[in-house]
Amino acid sequence: MNRTDRADTDTQPESRAARKERTRQALLEGTLGLLADRTFASLSLREVARTADIVPTAFYRHFASLDDLGVVLVEESMRMLRQMLRDARRSNTHRNQGTKSAGDSLDILARQVRSHEEQFRFLSRERYGGVPELRRAIALEMRLFVSELTVDLSRMPGLETWTTDDLEMSADLIVSAMFSTVVDLLEANRPNGRTEEDVIERAKKQLRLVMLGMSSWKSPRSDSNDIIS
Amino acid sequence: MNRTDRADTDTQPESRAARKERTRQALLEGTLGLLADRTFASLSLREVARTADIVPTAFYRHFASLDDLGVVLVEESMRMLRQMLRDARRSNTHRNQGTKSAGDSLDILARQVRSHEEQFRFLSRERYGGVPELRRAIALEMRLFVSELTVDLSRMPGLETWTTDDLEMSADLIVSAMFSTVVDLLEANRPNGRTEEDVIERAKKQLRLVMLGMSSWKSPRSDSNDIIS
Repeated sequence: MNRTDRADTDTQPESRAARKERTRQALLEGTLGLLADRTFASLSLREVARTADIVPTAFYRHFASLDDLGVVLVEESMRMLRQMLRDARRSNTHRNQGTKSAGDSLDILARQVRSHEEQFRFLSRERYGGVPELRRAIALEMRLFVSELTVDLSRMPGLETWTTDDLEMSADLIVSAMFSTVVDLLEANRPNGRTEEDVIERAKKQLRLVMLGMSSWKSPRSDSNDIIS
Repeated sequence: MNRTDRADTDTQPESRAARKERTRQALLEGTLGLLADRTFASLSLREVARTADIVPTAFYRHFASLDDLGVVLVEESMRMLRQMLRDARRSNTHRNQGTKSAGDSLDILARQVRSHEEQFRFLSRERYGGVPELRRAIALEMRLFVSELTVDLSRMPGLETWTTDDLEMSADLIVSAMFSTVVDLLEANRPNGRTEEDVIERAKKQLRLVMLGMSSWKSPRSDSNDIIS
């Protein structure tokens, strides 16, 4: 094991703030790299510090603790995902939203999983993982997802009259199915496994099925029996 | 740390085979106890051996490795769950199966989660956890669940004509929702959290929603437009 301290590597003519930000980013990216096939709980401060070429004690200039760094990783990964789905919904604000927007969102999700595999692996592994701080942070972000989707659903034709509880129940089902799809996408294209296309195709059908169910659902507050599609 | 070896504790007048089986069970139960708020990857052979009062080297008389013990834990936990859901379905083989049997299964699931909390915590944590052997074992068991449910669905009135692919797609959606419900049940009744009743109520509605969707779904092989409920 290389135990040499390397405090003197930051010699570029940068401002102090810029250098600090660069080291902070290096710590975040380096940690994500270490997590490719390991749990967050198994990381040591020493190896995390080494990814940014700093001594272990210097780590605390950037984060209060390893768990603190983990929570920042959760927040940054989820913010990226939420923003991207929000953009997808915004470009789908007219007719026939339900099924079409759901299908588009799934295509976008699949692209994102491919290009940010490390983040998604980290999120899916730590959601039920060994570090309570991270579990809580991810659970909170998932609830935000459900809330945002609930608001979206409440604006869809035929759903304006639904109770909040029923809207939330449906949003929760959709988010569970999405999470499960993300995990399937991460495992796709392996020997004996399903292909990415199969996974997306199935997920689209599942969303269509849920939408169909919603179109026949009678929410207590609703007098009419509107059909979405 | 207590590093004393205790090889001489098994002095009861038991047969060799009975003693061996007792130690094996003690190792399985002791490990489950250690996993209350930790990941499987964090366990050491020494502490696992200590739960059964044997020296670390004696562990290998019972399991090929720690991972091997983990896979046995997965199989035993999932076998218990599958058997219990199979019993629930068997007692529901007549009219109006869909919604009623789904509701019953959820009540049974909730009771099981309460009485076997350690097993469910272990399964939900390791499904995406740091030990590839366990992830694979749990993924395999989940696929068996989906297969069994697919067969059940294929026998429901109105679904006989569905394609296998559509049946499997629906079974997969139901199993994802169930898994998510199990996790919610494990987190239920905490301060600021949802109550167990809320979780079950929502899960029942979600299943009803999926069933409603299925009743309007047109599977390619189907000529008619049967309604389940």
